[in-house]
Amino acid sequence: MRVGIVGCGQLARMLALVGIRLGVKFSFLADQGTKTDIRCVEGLGEVTYLDGDMDGETLYKKLLCPDVVTVEKEQVDLSLLTRLAEECDIAPPIKAIEACQHRHREKRLLDSLGIPNAAYEYAESKSEVRKSVARLKKPVVIKSVDQGYDGKNQWVLRDESQLEHFEADAPEGAYIVEKWIIFDKEVSLVAVRDARHQVAYYSPTENVHEKGILLHSMAPAVGVQPSLLKLAETYISSILEELDYVGVLAMECFVTKDKLYVNELAPRVHNSGHWTQGGARTCQFENHVRAITGLSLGSTLNHGYAGMINILGAKEPPVSSLSAKSTLHWYNKSSRPGRKLGHINFLDSSRQELELSMNQFQRLLSVS
Amino acid sequence: MRVGIVGCGQLARMLALVGIRLGVKFSFLADQGTKTDIRCVEGLGEVTYLDGDMDGETLYKKLLCPDVVTVEKEQVDLSLLTRLAEECDIAPPIKAIEACQHRHREKRLLDSLGIPNAAYEYAESKSEVRKSVARLKKPVVIKSVDQGYDGKNQWVLRDESQLEHFEADAPEGAYIVEKWIIFDKEVSLVAVRDARHQVAYYSPTENVHEKGILLHSMAPAVGVQPSLLKLAETYISSILEELDYVGVLAMECFVTKDKLYVNELAPRVHNSGHWTQGGARTCQFENHVRAITGLSLGSTLNHGYAGMINILGAKEPPVSSLSAKSTLHWYNKSSRPGRKLGHINFLDSSRQELELSMNQFQRLLSVS
Repeated sequence: MRVGIVGCGQLARMLALVGIRLGVKFSFLADQGTKTDIRCVEGLGEVTYLDGDMDGETLYKKLLCPDVVTVEKEQVDLSLLTRLAEECDIAPPIKAIEACQHRHREKRLLDSLGIPNAAYEYAESKSEVRKSVARLKKPVVIKSVDQGYDGKNQWVLRDESQLEHFEADAPEGAYIVEKWIIFDKEVSLVAVRDARHQVAYYSPTENVHEKGILLHSMAPAVGVQPSLLKLAETYISSILEELDYVGVLAMECFVTKDKLYVNELAPRVHNSGHWTQGGARTCQFENHVRAITGLSLGSTLNHGYAGMINILGAKEPPVSSLSAKSTLHWYNKSSRPGRKLGHINFLDSSRQELELSMNQFQRLLSVS
Repeated sequence: MRVGIVGCGQLARMLALVGIRLGVKFSFLADQGTKTDIRCVEGLGEVTYLDGDMDGETLYKKLLCPDVVTVEKEQVDLSLLTRLAEECDIAPPIKAIEACQHRHREKRLLDSLGIPNAAYEYAESKSEVRKSVARLKKPVVIKSVDQGYDGKNQWVLRDESQLEHFEADAPEGAYIVEKWIIFDKEVSLVAVRDARHQVAYYSPTENVHEKGILLHSMAPAVGVQPSLLKLAETYISSILEELDYVGVLAMECFVTKDKLYVNELAPRVHNSGHWTQGGARTCQFENHVRAITGLSLGSTLNHGYAGMINILGAKEPPVSSLSAKSTLHWYNKSSRPGRKLGHINFLDSSRQELELSMNQFQRLLSVS
């Protein structure tokens, strides 16, 4: 069994590290250009560089004839996947990637399924944004329809000057203008669906972002109405079914006292599910590989209380800060300020102890 | 940080797969000869072939200047390690490997520490064996002093004809003749000691062997007097201290109703500790890497009830037999009848459920 992965970042790395032990072989499709960092997947499989003109068969052969192709990012050229689909399976299905890579399509998918999400308007061009902002009323958040991840290409507008900044700085293009939701917690749900339509859910995860970048996660989420978490499962289940999904899907939500709004979907393994490595009976990476290679799913039950802290822009793996309750996942990427270079997973028997461990680690990290 | 591993079998593979995510690099030292199967470690690091004449510095450089060298087997040329020790750390220490790779030295180590083990005699040559058998009285087991693993070079003698077979078949050499112990259970204990002398123990494991080959394990062991298990910890702790040990050490024991005898030691990660992958907070492979690279240990607490079944001589990875409660560790070795090609790990909330899952898997495997 061989899996081709479009992308060769840390998600590809972690999929391969767990898939290799299942007896699966990997190939990776890297973007052309010398700037592409393929160190994450070094040694874990063959790397092929993308050439826009390659037909499906050539590409398929260059990827060493995988049984299935998957993605580790949303922003994938759909025509590439369509060409590959003539040769092998694509999982998750192209229509899922298509829906999630464009915020307006994603919003329409949520609306069509009756899934609550922030009130919004679609602005066809940058000049349309001002009218939408006026109608929705500030605070709003403006998001590029197709170039956003880790908080990139997003503008939060609380006052007029911020709108002026947007108009001065933002590139031309289509945008979604969204009513800003004042939430209590950000919670994500990671689910997986296999080829026989079995669905499994991981425990909901609490996330803390800063400037759109995930800082840390804890699971299971606490202090959220159980009925809301149950609703979240219903929502993701209807999305999985609608898209005839196979693999891992992540759904980020805003939770208020009595409401849950879906913020965005990621058709892949997700940073907020990294705690499942060691924190659940089967991690999201293994279950994604199991699902897309036609195997049955492993249990998603969690072990106690798990947490994850992203390591942003460290020079060296912070191994000396590890304790009995933590472990490191290092991505082997070249260091740049603010870049996600690895993460630390924590496991504990109580939420309180978990928070103590995570705080202690943060202190050690900021001192070193 | 770079770790050199003497050997390139499945233990090297599993050490590397977990060590890579800690940010560690690996090099492997393979035996010379075309028969050496290095497929287990393909892609996971550089492989160097052993050349008996290489001096320490050359060898060290060929291994890309590791910070520490470890072993994945007992039968290692000690002079090789001594030469390497001039260039870098060796963990576990050479004296530990020396003691464990020779059954008489191992027996003397146990005796010197007052650790109960089967009554024995050392037979300097094959012709001495008969006298020892007469003194100890059958049933006995005869073991080559330095070539035994997976039941190789062992002879169980219950009657005179078996002694005659031994005399006809066995190669010339030194042997240990041991009184056969009628045991209730075979239990192993896997422990790990870090460079700061911290020791952690995994839950004791029950093992079932057939013809000296481990078939399956379950942990924690049940139906064994807790006081005996506590004694086992005392024993392994004194061995670790005596040898100034760093890394994982496995101790196999025979348990009767009220006694525990140490059968043998393995100065490395061990097949009976494979359940710790997913069955404990930190697996034996990670803790070995953490210990030998100078890091603090991860928690050895177990998650519920874990089990492991070795896959012997399968043609293909038996992925279709996986359930929600099991996962596969495949070694990527070429298939030979009876060869260890992978293992299945199981995790459950009760021992009874665990046994059901394991029995069901065995049935599926024997049908396919």
